[in-house]
Amino acid sequence: MLVYIAGSGAMGSTIGYHIQKNTDSEVILLDYWDDHIRKINENGLKVSGKVEDTIKIKAMKPEEADKKADLVVVMTKSMALESMMESIEDIIREDTQILCLLNGMGHERILEKFVDKNQINMGVTIWAAGLNAPGEIEITGKGTIDVQNIGGDEENGKKIADLLDKAGLGAKYDEDVMFAIWRKVMVNGTMNSMTSLMECTIGEFFESEESKEIVGELVKEFTEVGRAEGIKLDYEEMMAYILKSAEEAKDHYPSMYQDLIKRNRKTEIDFINGAVVEKGKNHNIATPYNKIVTQLIHAKEDIRGAK
Amino acid sequence: MLVYIAGSGAMGSTIGYHIQKNTDSEVILLDYWDDHIRKINENGLKVSGKVEDTIKIKAMKPEEADKKADLVVVMTKSMALESMMESIEDIIREDTQILCLLNGMGHERILEKFVDKNQINMGVTIWAAGLNAPGEIEITGKGTIDVQNIGGDEENGKKIADLLDKAGLGAKYDEDVMFAIWRKVMVNGTMNSMTSLMECTIGEFFESEESKEIVGELVKEFTEVGRAEGIKLDYEEMMAYILKSAEEAKDHYPSMYQDLIKRNRKTEIDFINGAVVEKGKNHNIATPYNKIVTQLIHAKEDIRGAK
Repeated sequence: MLVYIAGSGAMGSTIGYHIQKNTDSEVILLDYWDDHIRKINENGLKVSGKVEDTIKIKAMKPEEADKKADLVVVMTKSMALESMMESIEDIIREDTQILCLLNGMGHERILEKFVDKNQINMGVTIWAAGLNAPGEIEITGKGTIDVQNIGGDEENGKKIADLLDKAGLGAKYDEDVMFAIWRKVMVNGTMNSMTSLMECTIGEFFESEESKEIVGELVKEFTEVGRAEGIKLDYEEMMAYILKSAEEAKDHYPSMYQDLIKRNRKTEIDFINGAVVEKGKNHNIATPYNKIVTQLIHAKEDIRGAK
Repeated sequence: MLVYIAGSGAMGSTIGYHIQKNTDSEVILLDYWDDHIRKINENGLKVSGKVEDTIKIKAMKPEEADKKADLVVVMTKSMALESMMESIEDIIREDTQILCLLNGMGHERILEKFVDKNQINMGVTIWAAGLNAPGEIEITGKGTIDVQNIGGDEENGKKIADLLDKAGLGAKYDEDVMFAIWRKVMVNGTMNSMTSLMECTIGEFFESEESKEIVGELVKEFTEVGRAEGIKLDYEEMMAYILKSAEEAKDHYPSMYQDLIKRNRKTEIDFINGAVVEKGKNHNIATPYNKIVTQLIHAKEDIRGAK
């Protein structure tokens, strides 16, 4: 099986590493970062953290890929997904499967522009990784991956879950992966956006009673829209899950904070809080809290001149 | 006439200075800052900026005041208004007039707990001043004062406006002072709260298109609630006024920013964005943007441990 990783940052490389290392599939890492590609091709991909290893693996620019893909794991930033799909259109056949593990919601609508629904597999992962230098990743947290084919092609979805599980990624087929995706979006839609706005740790934010009221309003909107989309979300259960997750991660600055505050990068807010606003519109459900949070983050991007 | 200034920071002292200097009324400054009171009693009140002067004027703690007041100009922070009124209850007769020039809205409801409506005069001013040291104020901008008696006692309201105008404060009686108060609240409710949240200048905030959209939503809520309260507010006119004011003050950090970000002090948000939320409830008008902005500022106070 030929597997492309489209977007080979920390998480993409982590998944590519496991598949190349532990299965007989061939993996090709696609990325736009010249130094990263060169180092991987020259010295192999160096892995540290939960695993210490160096493996030989191919890396190239998306435009250089010419062999048809059996599976493409898309792992770009949300904002870069569409242009990545355009770049790799030629290697996608009618039976090529796509696996999308991106944070946030709404990516399926982008993927549907390029492939049929039964080629699209959505997933959610709690693996965590960082990129220390070109060609060097650090796996900071082992996790799991849940996968579901959203077109109903269960067979192909299960094949992908099996491959990832054999690769050591703790994967399973999940007939209700949208529940897990929504739950993760709610965690990101409260912690990531609010700590980026307030410039504080998760714990500092959740200490304030006013903060918890804001979180409550955000979660109310998420659960209402989610239920209208057929996802069985319970407000009390979600709040308890978020408060527990916040307690566990209290000393952390989430990825959006890292992007916007540390690196002055544009955020994925449109695929998190912004996505529930868009989905809310389809059901005539007002989502003022998620809307203003989305606008505030965009305003902050503008004020900081984020790129 | 015996005039007390209840709360003699920069603005209170500026008004007290003008009345004591230019009319035959006696002024007593009330405040809780020991050093400020002592310096004024020892050396007089020093005035710099638009005026250079030193005058002899009495200053004392509110509890030490024992002569009945003809006029009390309340100039505390909004949050301190109620406890100030409690402290000076004994010097207020049935014919004592109160003049309230505080920023924000909703102070009349606090004053009504202590005096009749026809003793209450609301006003709005664009004078600007700072406090350089105990006993030393700096008048940074000459302005005007608009006054109206909210109980309909026009005669008393006009007497106060006359006194302040003779004092050189550019005062006039205004039969529609609530319009001016609402307009000022809208300026503060967009610039002050948003620059405090974003930690930027007025100009930096208003550069962003997303920011302007947020401002638009805030102003929509303000005008809708204001109109329900009988104030003739026009959305387009208010937006134009705010954008013009923002352009003129583009390099400034507003007072709320100074309080919260520079001095780590609690803000007057409940009397600005919070006040329109409260008034909106009485008319069943939803004000989600003003509500979340109020909550975000309170959350920021909590996170910063503001006092």
